[in-house]
Amino acid sequence: MHTLQDLRDRFQTYQEAHSFDQEPAALYEPVNYIMGIGGKRLRPLLTLLSGHLFTDETQAALPAAMAVEIFHNFSLLHDDIMDEAPLRRGHMTVHQKFGLNAGILSGDVMLIYAYEFVLKSPNATTIGEMVSVLSKVAIKVCEGQQYDIDFEQRNDVSLPEYLKMIELKTAALLAGSLELGALAVGAAKEDQEHLSEFGRLTGIAFQLQDDYLDTFGDPDKVGKRTGGDIVQNKKTALIIKALELADSSQSAALQQWYDSTPADPAEKVAAVVAIYHQLGIPEFVRALRNDYQQRAYAHLEAVNAPQERKQLLIDLAESLLVREM
Amino acid sequence: MHTLQDLRDRFQTYQEAHSFDQEPAALYEPVNYIMGIGGKRLRPLLTLLSGHLFTDETQAALPAAMAVEIFHNFSLLHDDIMDEAPLRRGHMTVHQKFGLNAGILSGDVMLIYAYEFVLKSPNATTIGEMVSVLSKVAIKVCEGQQYDIDFEQRNDVSLPEYLKMIELKTAALLAGSLELGALAVGAAKEDQEHLSEFGRLTGIAFQLQDDYLDTFGDPDKVGKRTGGDIVQNKKTALIIKALELADSSQSAALQQWYDSTPADPAEKVAAVVAIYHQLGIPEFVRALRNDYQQRAYAHLEAVNAPQERKQLLIDLAESLLVREM
Repeated sequence: MHTLQDLRDRFQTYQEAHSFDQEPAALYEPVNYIMGIGGKRLRPLLTLLSGHLFTDETQAALPAAMAVEIFHNFSLLHDDIMDEAPLRRGHMTVHQKFGLNAGILSGDVMLIYAYEFVLKSPNATTIGEMVSVLSKVAIKVCEGQQYDIDFEQRNDVSLPEYLKMIELKTAALLAGSLELGALAVGAAKEDQEHLSEFGRLTGIAFQLQDDYLDTFGDPDKVGKRTGGDIVQNKKTALIIKALELADSSQSAALQQWYDSTPADPAEKVAAVVAIYHQLGIPEFVRALRNDYQQRAYAHLEAVNAPQERKQLLIDLAESLLVREM
Repeated sequence: MHTLQDLRDRFQTYQEAHSFDQEPAALYEPVNYIMGIGGKRLRPLLTLLSGHLFTDETQAALPAAMAVEIFHNFSLLHDDIMDEAPLRRGHMTVHQKFGLNAGILSGDVMLIYAYEFVLKSPNATTIGEMVSVLSKVAIKVCEGQQYDIDFEQRNDVSLPEYLKMIELKTAALLAGSLELGALAVGAAKEDQEHLSEFGRLTGIAFQLQDDYLDTFGDPDKVGKRTGGDIVQNKKTALIIKALELADSSQSAALQQWYDSTPADPAEKVAAVVAIYHQLGIPEFVRALRNDYQQRAYAHLEAVNAPQERKQLLIDLAESLLVREM
């Protein structure tokens, strides 16, 4: 059995051994750049931990772990172009640093390399299925991104629609990361499915937590000022549920703050937060997050693998879950 | 045995049965748009003709044929963004009609669907290899596009470098289209390789012909005014070879015209064409094109398949080759 840190080190060694040092440099330099500016490596760790439930031979899952990390960074790269984001993880975004065309083309080649790495998996009997899992996930991520864009233009997004969007845009890749790890080591079909569900439900829980913490988190713990989503009128589970529960005067107030861009954003944040509290939004979102996470753990429970190995996945999830939420 | 028209009809029927009518509409409408504005369907026909060398059961090659057509349109879509092209096949480009973000994201999902269609191929024993062929080709196309962009900034591109670029950007997908068709029907390894080489060499011949016709073609037959590449200072086999052969005064004249943007572009075209004739460029490019095409046919010759079926591939190639060149 390995430790979380073992697996993290193994992935880092593999990634360093597979850096993109080939020609043409202008195509691959942005790939190395975005792969090198950090990130938590959550998805490749999920892939390795998933394989590690069933075997110590986790090297079979390393190419798939690399694939999901490359895919994730591809999607960030192209999303940053679409969002016109200047910064990613505290560094310039690829299109800011290398230009729009490099952002598009280097992103494209990363998407292709995600497939290339899945194809490097040593377990020949499951490679076809692994490619299929990556493709299905990749389509979901694109569809989720499109719904996210669509929802910005709509005022009538329902909570189920929002949950579906985050399932596609965020949770599907966590599910796929776990499923690929299980497939890479030849785990049983029902274990793959439980792990996929564990990832999907955990992913939704994470996104609900993100929404919650942006408004109600402790800035010292979250590492950024709160209220950003409110200032930017971002569609989140909070505002969607609040509009669903609001009476006519609360609804009018929310709409008025939505349409306003006050000189002091703190005033807007405080007013919207007050309405959220009146409507019990913090409690609602906490309960919804916890419900998804409990259902996630039930699927992990059902996997046929040693408890001590499952504990590593729980540890990783718990390290990302904020208990005081 | 089928006719070229049979296979063309079969592909059209398959494509119509697999149009992208799903949600979210904003993601898939641009896909249907670019897939619907025409094109010669050269690549899917190559896939079907390649499979048809070995069997009448060409339906096994239909998903791969769709994959190469989707991939080709994906690459056009993203290239048009990078080139800021307003028109494609006489219609608005996707980013012009639907916006930059739709161009990026719909292109991404097309690249993924190219893989999805390969995965629909019925021959389970070769699917892994087919996915690998698509990936290798896709990487080459991205690398070729990057070299094309790089070469625009350079004045010292050699003919071998240029030929390598068009091999990656253009010829690799023709090679892959043929290879996928052969793989889809389970053809022998050496036949796959000969077909791949036939496609690669034919692709280079086609691009050399494109370069030639843009300057020396009969406008009535080519369907556009000649001299566009000269006016736009485009890197082609013509100018690269001319700069290689030019003496110092010819070289200075070419450079002077390169740096000029005369009010009457016809003057620039005529002057550069005159130098091309002095240097024997038309004869050189014709000979080079013919050499590639002859080597291509030698590989087709070596394929273990009935001559009458090979003739369909020759007919298709000849219909695209301009004999008076």
